[in-house]
Amino acid sequence: MISRDTCVARDLVDPLRGFRDRFVIPEGIIYLDGNSLGPMPRNAAAVLNRTIEQEWGHDLIRSWNSAGWFDMPVRLGDRVGALLGAAPGQTLVCDTTSINLYKAIHAAIGLRPDRSVVIAEDESFPTDLYIVEGAMKSAGRPMQRRLIGTDGPSIDALLDRDVAVAVLSHVNYRTGELLDMAAITRQLHDAGALVVWDLCHSIGVVEIAFDRHAVDFAVGCTYKYLNGGPGSPAFIAVAKTHQAAAQHPLSGWWGHAAPFAFDRNFRPDAGIKRFLCGTQPIISMRGVDAAIDAMEGVEVAALRQKSLALTELFMSRVAELLPGLDIVTPRQASLRGSQVGIAFDKGFAVVQAMIERGVIGDFRAPDLMRFGFAPLYVRFADVWDAADILASCINSEVWRDPRYSQVAGVT
Amino acid sequence: MISRDTCVARDLVDPLRGFRDRFVIPEGIIYLDGNSLGPMPRNAAAVLNRTIEQEWGHDLIRSWNSAGWFDMPVRLGDRVGALLGAAPGQTLVCDTTSINLYKAIHAAIGLRPDRSVVIAEDESFPTDLYIVEGAMKSAGRPMQRRLIGTDGPSIDALLDRDVAVAVLSHVNYRTGELLDMAAITRQLHDAGALVVWDLCHSIGVVEIAFDRHAVDFAVGCTYKYLNGGPGSPAFIAVAKTHQAAAQHPLSGWWGHAAPFAFDRNFRPDAGIKRFLCGTQPIISMRGVDAAIDAMEGVEVAALRQKSLALTELFMSRVAELLPGLDIVTPRQASLRGSQVGIAFDKGFAVVQAMIERGVIGDFRAPDLMRFGFAPLYVRFADVWDAADILASCINSEVWRDPRYSQVAGVT
Repeated sequence: MISRDTCVARDLVDPLRGFRDRFVIPEGIIYLDGNSLGPMPRNAAAVLNRTIEQEWGHDLIRSWNSAGWFDMPVRLGDRVGALLGAAPGQTLVCDTTSINLYKAIHAAIGLRPDRSVVIAEDESFPTDLYIVEGAMKSAGRPMQRRLIGTDGPSIDALLDRDVAVAVLSHVNYRTGELLDMAAITRQLHDAGALVVWDLCHSIGVVEIAFDRHAVDFAVGCTYKYLNGGPGSPAFIAVAKTHQAAAQHPLSGWWGHAAPFAFDRNFRPDAGIKRFLCGTQPIISMRGVDAAIDAMEGVEVAALRQKSLALTELFMSRVAELLPGLDIVTPRQASLRGSQVGIAFDKGFAVVQAMIERGVIGDFRAPDLMRFGFAPLYVRFADVWDAADILASCINSEVWRDPRYSQVAGVT
Repeated sequence: MISRDTCVARDLVDPLRGFRDRFVIPEGIIYLDGNSLGPMPRNAAAVLNRTIEQEWGHDLIRSWNSAGWFDMPVRLGDRVGALLGAAPGQTLVCDTTSINLYKAIHAAIGLRPDRSVVIAEDESFPTDLYIVEGAMKSAGRPMQRRLIGTDGPSIDALLDRDVAVAVLSHVNYRTGELLDMAAITRQLHDAGALVVWDLCHSIGVVEIAFDRHAVDFAVGCTYKYLNGGPGSPAFIAVAKTHQAAAQHPLSGWWGHAAPFAFDRNFRPDAGIKRFLCGTQPIISMRGVDAAIDAMEGVEVAALRQKSLALTELFMSRVAELLPGLDIVTPRQASLRGSQVGIAFDKGFAVVQAMIERGVIGDFRAPDLMRFGFAPLYVRFADVWDAADILASCINSEVWRDPRYSQVAGVT
């Protein structure tokens, strides 16, 4: 029989227990929103201060070379690539997820010049749908969008020889559902199509095998489970095999084969650097460095294992305390990421009330309560307590209190 | 007769003398590279630390609302807009100059659907030329580029009823030449064309009258004379009159009319926010806040006046000490920005030797020594000393020393 004591005992033998100390978790807070903004790694302040005061303040312009600023997108890219299962030279940290999606989708459409369809998901994070629209409009030929729906059509129904590329979320931002990257990538390739995986909600917490599954393109952000800081630059991964032919129109000087030759015509870098565009925000980039340092010594497999145990505990405990509550996240481990979504018509007020009681989750309209379980710093006892507080907020009908009225959280 | 003493005396009565204390200028350094990376405002460390430790570390996800992170592009945009002479609601701080150029050029091409030519400059910063290429390729119709050359053709020769838009640098990044924004904008408008001004080398140091000259689009960076920090996000300004019709394909969720409605289709914001795309790098954004705070109380007219005096002093002193040296920057005040370029075949070695002697300028291939004079912190005595050190490096033929071999500086 599980109790709070067994949770505490489990925390004591958790092989990841030492990692929690590497993060700043404010006193009295159970932070279940690391799937939106990861907390600050304890080393980040020092890393960022050195960048600000020494590299910028003291060394000034020389830091472009001496502090390696100019190489950061590639160097950090390889660090993120290691978490993706992508060999070096295929990943960059730069720009935003939306911008990187645009580059990837545009390039994929260009690599399939005789095809006219982009598959996307009805229920993907909206920017993915919007960027599909933008990339199609600027593709240089007529393109159509086909949408996978939660209640159908499925990818099987939509996939044919007209499909150039599918843009898919590895983990759904609402339900937490995890797609089978290996099988779907193979299915798309069998049909001659390419794939762009959005890894925003899986990077750092789900095992990803970019090279092994022969993924074409992937993008994602670094401020959720990677803890790189608010709006820290995103990543883009492009399979080696596509790099020489992949083109996109954001042809800025950082993507040039010889950025300092100052040629008059654009000649893209032969490799991954052709997916760079302009000068990157160095201080925010450094947050990604600090965050990956803070993960030093952990394997993604261990993160995944604990993540599944945390979400299973939460779901089973919620089902026990609040039978009949609509948990939208799959109970089967292989089908979920690291978050749990609960549909509840008073969810907005409940999330606000939980925040007041120290449990930070978030709410997505119209009715979704969303809780992320980051295995680097969330404890089993936290999960137990969070479920208790959820139950007490619902059982006491906190929505009758008119205070709970402002939305928290961004993505 | 000018002497070092008269320069020191001039510094004592300089109405901007108090501003130098607001910046960290390392001991013994004469910093003439603020046209590439501005120095750190003294208040920046505190502002950035608060963002890192309090807003991110302590307040976590709540800071998107409580610390105003989500509104920063618009709020900072209006602050930069004030320096542009642009009324509120027309400027954003976001993304990079290259990305913003892409949006602006794409939008301008779309606003002139019956025209097929983009004018650019042979000698502009290369990314402008490369992004023109990218925007033309993704415009959805065949477009041609026509280049203004230093030795001709001029804009007069290129301008006809086929021209949709001209992309022009207000101040040339090499020569420091300043274009007449009022006259050229009028000339383009008379021909039915639009203009995109690249203000990277004029913002914060040259008076700009965006509204008064009815400029259509402008972009620029915040890390040169604005001192926002390495790679701090760029700005884009779009005249009110164009906003409702202006479109670009980087249609991310921050540009949506209702970003949190999570609609399935993109519906752009009615105003300037349609030029946003994805989540911005908040810590680097805060550098812009700190930097504009550090300019509090100064008028651009006063900056311009001192800037011209500094560059005039440098050019006259260099001409005196090194007659015959090829100063490529116009001597006429109305034709130059805030930097001085000197073409010299041993320039690379000379710049390296000057850096060793405490004077930081930069070098641009094949032969250009470049010195920026930022009136917020450069003193007249600094200019005197820098000219002396330049002369001594050249007179002693420092290029015979094999040590000087690595390029410093980025833009």
